[in-house]
This record gives sequence, C-alpha cells and structure tokens, in this order.
Amino acid sequence: MADTVTALSLDDKLRAARTASLALAQASTAQKNAGLEAIAQAVETGAERILPANELDLANGRENGLSTGLQDRLRLDEARLAGLAAATRDIIALPDPVGGVVRGSTLPNGLQLTQVRVPFGVVGAIYEARPNVTIDIAALALKSGNAVVLRGGSAAENTNRELVALIQDALASVGLPADAVQTIDEFGREGATQLMQARGLVDVLIPRGSAQLIDTVVRESKVPVIETGAGVVHLYLDASADVEMATEIAVNSKVQRPSVCNALETLLVDASSAERLLPPVLSALRENGVTLHADERTRALFPDAVPVTDEDYATEHMSLDLSVKVVDDLDEALEHIRSYSTHHTESIVTNDMARANRFLAEVDSAVVMVNASTRFTDGGEFGFGAEVGISTQKLHARGPMGLPELTSTKWIVRGEGQVRG
Amino acid sequence: MADTVTALSLDDKLRAARTASLALAQASTAQKNAGLEAIAQAVETGAERILPANELDLANGRENGLSTGLQDRLRLDEARLAGLAAATRDIIALPDPVGGVVRGSTLPNGLQLTQVRVPFGVVGAIYEARPNVTIDIAALALKSGNAVVLRGGSAAENTNRELVALIQDALASVGLPADAVQTIDEFGREGATQLMQARGLVDVLIPRGSAQLIDTVVRESKVPVIETGAGVVHLYLDASADVEMATEIAVNSKVQRPSVCNALETLLVDASSAERLLPPVLSALRENGVTLHADERTRALFPDAVPVTDEDYATEHMSLDLSVKVVDDLDEALEHIRSYSTHHTESIVTNDMARANRFLAEVDSAVVMVNASTRFTDGGEFGFGAEVGISTQKLHARGPMGLPELTSTKWIVRGEGQVRG
Repeated sequence: MADTVTALSLDDKLRAARTASLALAQASTAQKNAGLEAIAQAVETGAERILPANELDLANGRENGLSTGLQDRLRLDEARLAGLAAATRDIIALPDPVGGVVRGSTLPNGLQLTQVRVPFGVVGAIYEARPNVTIDIAALALKSGNAVVLRGGSAAENTNRELVALIQDALASVGLPADAVQTIDEFGREGATQLMQARGLVDVLIPRGSAQLIDTVVRESKVPVIETGAGVVHLYLDASADVEMATEIAVNSKVQRPSVCNALETLLVDASSAERLLPPVLSALRENGVTLHADERTRALFPDAVPVTDEDYATEHMSLDLSVKVVDDLDEALEHIRSYSTHHTESIVTNDMARANRFLAEVDSAVVMVNASTRFTDGGEFGFGAEVGISTQKLHARGPMGLPELTSTKWIVRGEGQVRG
Repeated sequence: MADTVTALSLDDKLRAARTASLALAQASTAQKNAGLEAIAQAVETGAERILPANELDLANGRENGLSTGLQDRLRLDEARLAGLAAATRDIIALPDPVGGVVRGSTLPNGLQLTQVRVPFGVVGAIYEARPNVTIDIAALALKSGNAVVLRGGSAAENTNRELVALIQDALASVGLPADAVQTIDEFGREGATQLMQARGLVDVLIPRGSAQLIDTVVRESKVPVIETGAGVVHLYLDASADVEMATEIAVNSKVQRPSVCNALETLLVDASSAERLLPPVLSALRENGVTLHADERTRALFPDAVPVTDEDYATEHMSLDLSVKVVDDLDEALEHIRSYSTHHTESIVTNDMARANRFLAEVDSAVVMVNASTRFTDGGEFGFGAEVGISTQKLHARGPMGLPELTSTKWIVRGEGQVRG
C-alpha cells in the first residue's frame, strides 16, 4: 500500500499557524518561557539530528557552488548549537511585551480606555541560508506570543526541517501548540510567493538577508512588511572635530566588523580641516587594511587612493573598502547624505553645538549620532537584549527592533452602559 | 503666442513635495499654527473661488449619475466652509507631536539615547468625492510636519483644485513652502497608480473611502499603507446582560449614525437569555426603523424578520439593516466574530467578570469593549482632538489615529567619542 500520509498544503500550514496563534496569544509568560527552555535543551542535545542534516546541506552547497562565506553562515557545529541555546535562554530573561500598557485614560463620560500590547498573530520570515535565524526568529516570536511561518531558503532546507521539528516537539512537550512554528521550505520559491500573498492569514512579513531579497519582498508582498535594510552609513568630520576622536570613531566604525549593516561606508570631511584631519585619519584606516576610494580633493593628499565613483557612494561594500569625500561645509555634507544614504545610521564628529544640532535635526535616518561610532546601532548595544533586525522604514518600527516591535496594540474600553449622545 | 507655462509632471510634483517636506520637518509649532490659521481664513473667505468650482463638480456629478448620497458628500456651502475653518482651528489647539520624546536612556558607556517623534516626510492620500477630506488631511499633515500629495478623485476635481490653490497661497503667506500640499487629480487614474508606485518619494499612503478603494490601494501599493478599513461590528449580549443596558447600547450602536464604520452590523445573543433579551431589544430597534435579518432561533420569536444569510453576516450595511443571531454560548459568539469580523470594534454587554475578561482577551479587534456603545470608537471620543482615520491593520497604528500616528521616530545618540569594544 502506498504512503497514505497526505502532505499538508501551504494553505493548511498557514491556517494551522493561525489557529495556533490564538492559543499562543493567551499563553502566560511562564508557559512561553518553559517553551523557550525546552527549545534551548532540544538544540543543546539535538546535534545527532541536526548536524547530519546540516552536513547534507553543506555538501549540496559545495556541489552547487555556494560561496565560502555563505557556506560558513550555513554551517552548524556543537559550539554554534551551544551558542544558539544560550541565545534562546537570553530571551527567557527579557520582559514579556504582551499585555504591557502603552497608554490609557478615563474619559469624561467615565469610559476607561487602555491601549495594551498584543501579539501580531502570525509573523512570516523570509531569509537565506542562515539556520541560526530559524532558532532566533522562532524564539523571539514565541516570547512575543506570535506564531511564525519560516521560509529559510533551499540551501538550508534539511537543517531547517530538523530544527523546526525539534522546536515543534519542544513546544508540544510543554503544552504549547506545535503548529505555532512552521517551515514552508518544501514549497520552494512558489511557497515564498504564496506567503507574500497571504493577507489575512499572515499579519506581518520580515525579510532578512541580501538587499535583493529584501527588495523583492518589499515590492511583491501584499502582506505588510517590516523592511530591514542595507546601510550606506556616513561619518562626517566637521571642521571642529578633535583629531584623535575622529580617528578612533572612523576606524571603529569601519574596521571593527566591516561586513555588517552599521559599518561605515563613506567618510565626509570638511574642506577647511581636510589637511589637519585627513592624513592621520586615513593613515590609521590604511594601517587597518582599508582600501580608500577617494575624490579629487582627497587624492591631492593621498594620490595613490583609488578614484571614487558615484557607484561607490551608493554601495554598501560590506568590506574594507571606504569612500572618502571632501565637502565644502555642513550643507554639502547633508546634501551628499540626502542623495546617497539608505537612512540607516549617520554620525558627525564635531565640537560645534549648532552644527551638531543641525545634523541631528536634518539627517533623516533611523539613527543619527554625535561623536559616536556608527557600530552602536544595534539592539544589543541599545539594551534591547535581543534584536529582530534593524528597520530602515518609517512605518511601525525604525532602527533596532526589540520584542515590543513584534507586537501590535489593541484598545480596551470598559464601560457601565455608556452610549453616545 | 501659445501658453508657454509647462505643466508639471507627476514626478515633478512628488519631488517638489519631497523638497518641501524637508523645510516643513524643521518648521516650528508656531509657524505651522500660523499656516493653519491662514488656511482657516482662506476657507472662510474663499467662498467666491470655491463654490463655483463645487457647483461645476455637482453639475458634472448629476450628469454622470452620481448618487444623491455622494452628491451630498461632494456639496460645499457657506455653512460647511465655516465648519471646515473651525475644524482647522481645532487642530491649532492640539499638541504638536513632532519632537516628542518616546523613550530614552543613558547606556553603561555613557551614550545618551533618545527616541524622538519626527514627521514621516511625504504622506499620500487617496480618497473619493469628499472635498472636506482635502482640508482635513492637509491640516493634519501640516500640524504633524508632513508634506501631503492628494488624489481626491475626478468627481471633486474642480473643488479640490481650488482648495489646494487656497491652501498653497495660505502656506506661502506665512513663509511655509507652498509645495507642501499637492493635488494630482489632473493625472486621473494613472496618477493614483503612479502614487502607489512612488517608493522613496512617498513615505506612507492613506486610503480613505469605500472598501473597494481601500482594497485596491492595499493590494497595489508598493508604498507602505495604513489601512483604514470597513467595520463589520458585533455586539454580544451575554446571558447576564442587563436588559435596559442591552437595549440602550444596541440601539445607540446601530441607530445613532448607521452610515459610519463604528455602527453595529451584527447582534449576537446568548441562547439562555434570548427569550428575556430579544423581545425588548429587537422591538426597540424596530421602533427606530431597523430592519432585522435574523437566524432561525431569532425568527422563532420574530417570525416576520428577514431570514439572515452568510452574506449578511459578512456585510457592512451602513444602513438600518441589522443581522441577528442566537448563539449557544460565549465560545460560539467568539467563533462567529472570528469568522466575520473586520477587526474594527466589538462589544459585549455582560455582568459576568470572567466572560468579560475572556471577550476582551480573545477578540482580536482594534477596539474591544465591555458595556459600551460601539459608536465610541472615534478619535474625537477618545480625546485625540482630530482623527486621521481608524486603522484596522496591526502595523504602526491600530484603531483611531490621532496626530502622533502621522509621525515616525528617530533615534538620537549623543556621545563623547565612544567606540565599540
């Protein structure tokens, strides 16, 4: 007799997630924390199930010419599993956002109004070849009372299938609905497309990954999206900048971890201080392995720098490449930032109060800084304890997103028979 | 010589709005209030410009078979202009949301973090045949520091052109950028389509009007949308409901203004109290002209009621038609609401604390009430002073939206040279 188990359709899975979300929304913090602990233990003790599946994905990746960088992101081992378990336990320690009161009042007619945080319901996540995101998003969603539907990409399909099975078992073991975490990798690209169309079943979609992936989701999704975007990040050295501070901040912003979205991409320097600032700052950057792509005025001082192009200015290199430009004044710096910024993070080094205030007021980015490294744009650094991503859109969430950003609100109105006059 | 004035393209207009938004974001509250006062005066004294244009739209409407209801919404007269001027002055009195501090902290490394409210930038609005919305949205956008691009529909094209011209003159008269308020009605449907594609130039799009209009914008827009949706609003009379309170709340919810989104559409009654509650409640509704569409169990008591259909349950009638259903218990009421609610407003009449709490916790709507008329879901009633609309989505804003819901936030980070270790 043939296998009589009927595979679930994608619609079945979304509906099961929706039903599970109702129970999860009512779950107590203690129940959700028990679920997180069960997941941490399953990840810690699940190497026998997880690592062979991960080996299979890695072998397929090598065969399909997956870059070594992506292979590294895809790879799990005992140490990384322990790290994922620890990260899951960190989320247990965070406050539960659900039920938090945002504001409230008693109206003149005696009606009591309270705006409380509630889970979104079902969160969709689309990402690429990073099995750590599977655990990470599932744990954040669980803590915030949301069911989650994961599309993790074909490159990590076997790993993700095992991870989701472990998570589902862990949820069931503490009496939470296993259906609250679903993978739809088996439906391939068609599954991602359907997820983006699933208005009414999925409440919000979070893409994590390359600029191209995010752009596709933003353009195609009918479900509301929280865009976590690329960072073409600027640092402006004002005429009054202290040279040591400028050097330290420029080097830290660019070099400390060049492959992430809050790393520096373009250094702007005020013309009147270019001769004072550029030699020490650019020399320090070069000593740290930075390749300079510079404009004409910079190249007058550093003639062996690569000539910078407009494309450089618009690019998130995610490498040790840095664009450098001398600008006439703050106005030209602001103009350059308006033209090329992705509205992620920009910083100014200055000792001038008026120019600091103008920079803070006029730069239209999620995070705007004075005299600080751009690397501080981070949920962990901001004290959120966990980071869902860094939103570069203006709707709902902007900048580093913590657990509260995974919730919506609802208004509770308590009356004693009031009617409208 | 031919007319040498070159008409602006839609892209020109959007770019002009974007440029104007930069100045508006920096404008002081006093400047913006001066702009609002100038608009109020222009509307008050502009009858000679506005009313002939409105007459033309009305004549076109009659010719094109515009319904009398829509003709009424389209019509302006001296009294309505005075009302619009007064509403604009009301917005002067409201607090300016821009610059408001949402939260902040000093990090262990001394960095000072502040999350402040900032304007979105450029807000797009798509609506139908209601010239009052032109003034209303322009005034709300101005107060919240946003430029606005209006697509008000061909039926009100002449009226809106005059209104926008008056607003632009008023803005210029107080030194604010006239380009901050734009109409794109002259581009017809193609203009609306382009507006929905204008990612990067328009920050958020707000559709106001019919369910069909809103649905089209939600499905087609690449710009983030705040959905202001239809209300299939439910009232559940629990077994413990006081009969007088039930009657007053049901009548007020349905009858006080049946054509609006917070008016009642479906009455659910607990079976165990149906004989006690239905006769007085339904009789009072009928005395107020309500047509009952009732299920079998209700028709056992009111045999002359129209048999209700599934389509009735799913319909926002916006008229004196009401669906009535007897349910076995709270579970069946919650189940019915899950199936048919548009997640706008639901209310329960009860004296039972446990069931009240379950209803508040489990109904997934923007506003959930106990012992209160559904008509209270309203920005004015909530004390917001002005209402941008009632959001039925979960992202960014949910329920009545006031001025703060027309803003985004940004993080300000002030350091003294901190770098990341």
